[in-house]
Amino acid sequence: MRLSRYFLPLMKETPAEAQIISHRLMHRAGLIHKTSAGIYSWLPLGLRVLERIENIIREEQDRIGNHYIKMSTIQPADLWIESGRYDAYGKEMLRIKDRHNRDFLYGPTNEEQVTDIVRTHVKSYKDLPLNLYQIQWKFRDEIRPRFGVMRGREFLMKDGYSFDLNFEAAKKTYQDIFYSYLRTFRRMGLTAIPVQADSGAIGGNMSHEFQILAETGESTLYYDKRYEEMANSTHIDYEELTRLYAVESEKHNPATCPIPEDQLMVKKGIEVGHIFYFGTKYSAAMGLNITGPDGKTFHPEMGSYGIGVSRLVGAIIEASHDDKGIIWPEAVAPFKAIIIDLVKSNDATSSMGDQLNTTLKNAGIEVLYDDRDERPGVKFASADLIGIPYQVIIGKKSTESGIVEFKHRKSGQIQEITLDQVVEKLTKDHA
Amino acid sequence: MRLSRYFLPLMKETPAEAQIISHRLMHRAGLIHKTSAGIYSWLPLGLRVLERIENIIREEQDRIGNHYIKMSTIQPADLWIESGRYDAYGKEMLRIKDRHNRDFLYGPTNEEQVTDIVRTHVKSYKDLPLNLYQIQWKFRDEIRPRFGVMRGREFLMKDGYSFDLNFEAAKKTYQDIFYSYLRTFRRMGLTAIPVQADSGAIGGNMSHEFQILAETGESTLYYDKRYEEMANSTHIDYEELTRLYAVESEKHNPATCPIPEDQLMVKKGIEVGHIFYFGTKYSAAMGLNITGPDGKTFHPEMGSYGIGVSRLVGAIIEASHDDKGIIWPEAVAPFKAIIIDLVKSNDATSSMGDQLNTTLKNAGIEVLYDDRDERPGVKFASADLIGIPYQVIIGKKSTESGIVEFKHRKSGQIQEITLDQVVEKLTKDHA
Repeated sequence: MRLSRYFLPLMKETPAEAQIISHRLMHRAGLIHKTSAGIYSWLPLGLRVLERIENIIREEQDRIGNHYIKMSTIQPADLWIESGRYDAYGKEMLRIKDRHNRDFLYGPTNEEQVTDIVRTHVKSYKDLPLNLYQIQWKFRDEIRPRFGVMRGREFLMKDGYSFDLNFEAAKKTYQDIFYSYLRTFRRMGLTAIPVQADSGAIGGNMSHEFQILAETGESTLYYDKRYEEMANSTHIDYEELTRLYAVESEKHNPATCPIPEDQLMVKKGIEVGHIFYFGTKYSAAMGLNITGPDGKTFHPEMGSYGIGVSRLVGAIIEASHDDKGIIWPEAVAPFKAIIIDLVKSNDATSSMGDQLNTTLKNAGIEVLYDDRDERPGVKFASADLIGIPYQVIIGKKSTESGIVEFKHRKSGQIQEITLDQVVEKLTKDHA
Repeated sequence: MRLSRYFLPLMKETPAEAQIISHRLMHRAGLIHKTSAGIYSWLPLGLRVLERIENIIREEQDRIGNHYIKMSTIQPADLWIESGRYDAYGKEMLRIKDRHNRDFLYGPTNEEQVTDIVRTHVKSYKDLPLNLYQIQWKFRDEIRPRFGVMRGREFLMKDGYSFDLNFEAAKKTYQDIFYSYLRTFRRMGLTAIPVQADSGAIGGNMSHEFQILAETGESTLYYDKRYEEMANSTHIDYEELTRLYAVESEKHNPATCPIPEDQLMVKKGIEVGHIFYFGTKYSAAMGLNITGPDGKTFHPEMGSYGIGVSRLVGAIIEASHDDKGIIWPEAVAPFKAIIIDLVKSNDATSSMGDQLNTTLKNAGIEVLYDDRDERPGVKFASADLIGIPYQVIIGKKSTESGIVEFKHRKSGQIQEITLDQVVEKLTKDHA
């Protein structure tokens, strides 16, 4: 992709309201446009990251046999009246009347709607276990939207819902999702700490939050330091992992903490996922009756499983940046490499850049090519700001020597190598 | 994908309100679930088709250098007050008040919002031409939603917006999109007739509707019969195509029709795309000022370009079905092939089915595998109903002879061939 033709509006100024680094960097790097308070539109570079995250989530959901669906964003109030949550939900629910004065709402979550789908279409225990998930826009009318996409009003969420025959089966589903979430975040280059959670407004009795570590996080986490060691080893024993101590500050009591102080880590975290088991709360309230093995009907055991997809873009930046800009983990980077032609209006370096651009593209590597008519300083600053993992820098001498600089954004390490070596390095771990 | 574990709720009964064949078939084939009048949720099989359509659109948009973005579904009323359309739009606009009693709406279209993005980020004519597109949910509060996803209230649309320096450039953009749309629909296995259109509520002075031919279409089209010949030839001269006569009935006047009667086709069509050039209507009203080559500011010339993504699923079924069910064009089919194991509880046929399923999957072929414990009649009917292009039928004798039936859903032709030949046939045109 040639930068000279790409819609990438980089900004020097950031809105005064942008208090946290990810919010500022998302504006400066041209990832988002603010449409209204807590309502953002995604520009091309930001949308690429959002889609990378979506793809990883989908692959991991599909891997464990969950079914991908897409529910409408607008829901009839009737469903929420059935579950008893319509009045209880409060002002965060965006309530809407249609032209016939009927009550609707913009879904803040979808337990009712998915329960309606399942009670319409599933009649026998033989169709269980069933786990339906979607990636869809949600709206929660936060009183004070802030921190950009981290606490927006309209946001993209992966939400999944499970239906099981009994508690034992529901517990197994919960554990499978638990492990799957650890794998999902790990694939994004993140260390996610699963902490026991109060189940809050949704209700229930088994719940974990997944928090990724970032100095600017809102939560303070207390957890066993073996967690990080185990999570970052090449072979993960997920079952072992889940036994480790990890709680938020309000649940931590030094007097009763089961692990010694020198084994205890205290770090800030950002919630990026949340899973719940809540039994028959919705299936009973909404009359989801399924015929069991004994011929009698029963209410399936349910759980719900969320990942904040748009929030993750901000959270990843909080966890991975420096004073020059974003440092994308490779798995979610909008492009894998950026080619920087340092010399203005020079046919030889242009032709070298063009050729490398084509070669990489043909090899299936997503590459951005800074062919703009700008000074080297501007190009270096742009590349560091937008945080593409690898920079290939073509200078005046490159055309004679055949040597370019290959810079790793994260470590800052620079190697002087040939174009063939660049291609080899960028394709070697590319499936 | 094993059908025994897939969420595919096939139905015998269809809702009384389902008057047209595509609506009935979408329910019977388990593609959608009705959440409320004109509001549907997409079940796994339907969502796969929706995504196939999305992918073709995106590839064709990217091919001509358009930029992929995603605007929020909720928009502030302010933008529409600026353009003068807030009051004019009428009851089809879903108007919303947030918790602070501020006016918002669920976007029925996005001219205002995209103009706001461009006026914020684009300052120089050097950044033109610019064409931003998205695929996003829209809401139009139809007074009588009907025909399922064909005239729903919440629907998925591809909408693109162009910004050009002057009329000449805008006209070229319009033409490029015009050709691109013809290619897009053709890739979906559809013949789309571009008819001159009144520009309707959006306003403007250059506009075409793209109609696909279907006996149940709402519009009556009068067009040059050379259109179909040219559109279906292997090499298309798009420029030639656009010169052919094609209008809707209200614009057709036999007295002034420029082509002889024996060259005139009269067929029913369904609108699946609509393109508009509308000059500076929004850029002027909303103060989108860009600095031109002469240093003076100007309002860019704009156009908008829509494709009804969710509507296309219904429209394709209207255009391609028989009395047994859907006949998906290959390019949009949810799976390319379905393996049908006809023999209940038979280890040998199961093992043959398993093996073929794995082989095809490994070859990158999307395959559904009917391993359900059902009678042959049920399996044949299901396969015909859901319209997968190729059926591979494994019978009792197949395990001895190594021969299976390979049935083409559209033509009904059956060949008796080996498994190797099945794999060869399904992979040969698979890039």
